[in-house]
Amino acid sequence: MQLHEAREQLTALQARLSAYRHALGLINYDGATAAPKNTAANRAHTMPILSEAVYRIATGPETVSLLEFLDGRRDELTEKERRQVFLLLKDLRFMQKIPMDEFLAYRRLLVESDDVWHRAKAANDFASFAPYLERIFEAKRRFAGYAAPEKDPYDYWLNDYEAGLTRQTCDAFFAAVRAGIVPLLQAVREAEPLSDACIRGDFPEPEQKELALYLMDLIGLDRGRVGLSTTEHPFTTSLGSHFDTRITTHIYRENVSYSLFSVVHEGGHALYETGAADDLAYTVLDGGVSMSIHESQSRFYENYIARSLPFVRTIFPKVRELFPRQMAGVTAEDFWKAVNKAEPSLIRTKADELTYCLHVMVRYELEKRLMAGDLAVRDLPAAWNALYKEYLGVDVPDDTRGVLQDSHWGGGMVGYFPSYALGSAYGAQILARMKETVDVDACLARGDLGPVNEWNREHIWQYGKLYPPAELLERVLGGPFNPACYVRYLEEKYRALCGL
Amino acid sequence: MQLHEAREQLTALQARLSAYRHALGLINYDGATAAPKNTAANRAHTMPILSEAVYRIATGPETVSLLEFLDGRRDELTEKERRQVFLLLKDLRFMQKIPMDEFLAYRRLLVESDDVWHRAKAANDFASFAPYLERIFEAKRRFAGYAAPEKDPYDYWLNDYEAGLTRQTCDAFFAAVRAGIVPLLQAVREAEPLSDACIRGDFPEPEQKELALYLMDLIGLDRGRVGLSTTEHPFTTSLGSHFDTRITTHIYRENVSYSLFSVVHEGGHALYETGAADDLAYTVLDGGVSMSIHESQSRFYENYIARSLPFVRTIFPKVRELFPRQMAGVTAEDFWKAVNKAEPSLIRTKADELTYCLHVMVRYELEKRLMAGDLAVRDLPAAWNALYKEYLGVDVPDDTRGVLQDSHWGGGMVGYFPSYALGSAYGAQILARMKETVDVDACLARGDLGPVNEWNREHIWQYGKLYPPAELLERVLGGPFNPACYVRYLEEKYRALCGL
Repeated sequence: MQLHEAREQLTALQARLSAYRHALGLINYDGATAAPKNTAANRAHTMPILSEAVYRIATGPETVSLLEFLDGRRDELTEKERRQVFLLLKDLRFMQKIPMDEFLAYRRLLVESDDVWHRAKAANDFASFAPYLERIFEAKRRFAGYAAPEKDPYDYWLNDYEAGLTRQTCDAFFAAVRAGIVPLLQAVREAEPLSDACIRGDFPEPEQKELALYLMDLIGLDRGRVGLSTTEHPFTTSLGSHFDTRITTHIYRENVSYSLFSVVHEGGHALYETGAADDLAYTVLDGGVSMSIHESQSRFYENYIARSLPFVRTIFPKVRELFPRQMAGVTAEDFWKAVNKAEPSLIRTKADELTYCLHVMVRYELEKRLMAGDLAVRDLPAAWNALYKEYLGVDVPDDTRGVLQDSHWGGGMVGYFPSYALGSAYGAQILARMKETVDVDACLARGDLGPVNEWNREHIWQYGKLYPPAELLERVLGGPFNPACYVRYLEEKYRALCGL
Repeated sequence: MQLHEAREQLTALQARLSAYRHALGLINYDGATAAPKNTAANRAHTMPILSEAVYRIATGPETVSLLEFLDGRRDELTEKERRQVFLLLKDLRFMQKIPMDEFLAYRRLLVESDDVWHRAKAANDFASFAPYLERIFEAKRRFAGYAAPEKDPYDYWLNDYEAGLTRQTCDAFFAAVRAGIVPLLQAVREAEPLSDACIRGDFPEPEQKELALYLMDLIGLDRGRVGLSTTEHPFTTSLGSHFDTRITTHIYRENVSYSLFSVVHEGGHALYETGAADDLAYTVLDGGVSMSIHESQSRFYENYIARSLPFVRTIFPKVRELFPRQMAGVTAEDFWKAVNKAEPSLIRTKADELTYCLHVMVRYELEKRLMAGDLAVRDLPAAWNALYKEYLGVDVPDDTRGVLQDSHWGGGMVGYFPSYALGSAYGAQILARMKETVDVDACLARGDLGPVNEWNREHIWQYGKLYPPAELLERVLGGPFNPACYVRYLEEKYRALCGL
């Protein structure tokens, strides 16, 4: 084989893989948006067949010899090609270690499990979901054993979502954050409570949709390439390439802020995805590099941008225009306080910025124990409820609002939750770094996110998966990650909000 | 190879093909519904790659030897397996004759052409679309030459949509229909004109959507398996199997009847698709057998059911409940007359039942001449306008409302249009046959379509593609097809409506 031929084949291989990602991603997206409600079995027929095709392409003998050839001549490759070969080989080595029938059975299990989880959550019926959860955790342990028998299985999956991450790092990170948040939350609860009355009431869907589109424009999303739909759980997905990205929201008629911040949160993910350099499209370098870096962007826009006073002042005239009756007598400052009210609660996705990490910590503790076999799935609801009492001081009334609330475990995402908390902490330090050269508050005050987005594009988005997350983060921050920055941000914010 | 192994492989082959149909169908559907507006190029990246995979599966050496093995032992196969092998071999023989690079270039051409057609239609710019149309007709002629060099190319494509159909049959059919319709239309135009004032006005989208869902339930669609969306042009598609079927409509705020009859028309397609026997799912026998039989069902529900007086009487209370102001002083009979008003017009998809076939005839004449090389694409608009004047007596003001109105030719569908007219005529004869044993009017009067649907399911839907269309039709009708039945139906209907 000639090097130039191998390079062409590398491009063609990645184009093929992106076409299947397009199809599989769209089938998932359709299932969450437009698909009629009794069609899950039909998708469960198609997805293993297409997944098997991906498996064959990614692990076939032609691919193996192509990648090994290119890896042997890596010094002659460009930086991008080297990283492409590295990432493809990493997947290949993993796939080679998992027996194909087990892999396909696992894919089928996830499709069924997601369906069962939806029904179990609606019916507050953990027992019906438990056997699926057992099989999922069992598969995760087994696959980790195949892939890295020398490693702790939970460390394996942490590292899968975030290269380099271990339980040890997580334990230290969560301890530092908990030590900062718990006394701060105590002080907030002893202060005069903030009122969130103005965000509750009756906010019809058409006006909330208009607000969502206004926000997409304001934060700089290109609506010719980024679509908006409504789903039970908001999410972001790119289909085939970053040239076609979808975000979703959930509109609650009785609350104007849930969809507002969901749109900005998912919008942050979409800015990151669509901000990749165009020449990364249809390669494995397209899109975000890790879940934590992704969350650092989504939570950056949701919390550090959209929950700040200057941003709220900028959007408040639009909110008042859309909801004149509901906002009569309300000021931008009232609205700002309302959307930042902190109090312990039951639902992670509706939690405020201050208590959010405590919700994540519960999940981190539990999945660690489940994976280690220290906790049985049948004992999970009781353990969940006990940790909510310990960390947040709340009593969980039922599993629907308890252990069944999140889709992650039923979707095979174990080791994912820490990303949410790490991403928040990365984001706070990114903000501090950005503020060294950009007057962020002045940008938000004039409703111009251009300089903020340009900074993120230059330092983060354009690179896609070119650098490993730890390397990217160190480049962005100009030094090591330090959770103290996040704790300091929360302290300053809540002191100002609550007059502590 | 053992026969039982070959049978298993036949099942697996069809399951794979249905998975790719699912993916490709969904990408198309998404493009027409949820996709952001500047993402066509992204779909154009993915679709040729998946189409190539289908091509490789359908024509690969394993498939060839499997099908030839099974064909050689066809006497030992079940009736269904024999038909599966026949249909797969038919596609295979076609594909083997078309060079793969030409086939893929044609697929790419169609994706581009569809995009150009949308823009050309919006901008009344036939010139920009003409080069694509030339290349499409050129490819259709070329492919017909590869596939059946002994056949006239237009006959080849007619036959492709409807096995056995030729220009000769079409010429005779259209002549008979024209001979019946032209004097009838003349008489209708000389009679007291019907008023359609009550269907025009302001009909907000949410209430029209509610009406659409009411109609889906009333005609017996299972909304757990049949979804509804809105698109520029209404259509029906099944994704992977008949277990997941989607219909679309277009809601015009100023007209309550367009979406109403679109939903019932597409609903007829969806009843046919979803009515296939469940064991046909994930085989090539799933879904409707031909375009004409499909149209016989869609136009059956749209015209023979939904535009009948007993059906209008049944739905009118719902229409009045949703639009009390607009329907003040209007009776069910007024509404029935309004939705049956016949007059020559410009747009096929908005044409009434009486003039509809004349619109089809224009397209039939033109595509026949284009395919024969008797008409150049550049002369098409003038020829279109001349035939609209001759057949319908109307002047075409621009190409947007003229030759650019339909998506078919730009989508490579040449030889398809006659199906609409044939389907209408089949439907009229099916109705007459059904009425020998079912009191259709009584069913419609009590809003119970059960017996009507059961008759269609028993005689048509359950079989999917098991019988060739001509054989199926003869079984259903208990004798040969006769266009006179359709002309008689139109005469009786319009005599009653207009008091002729």
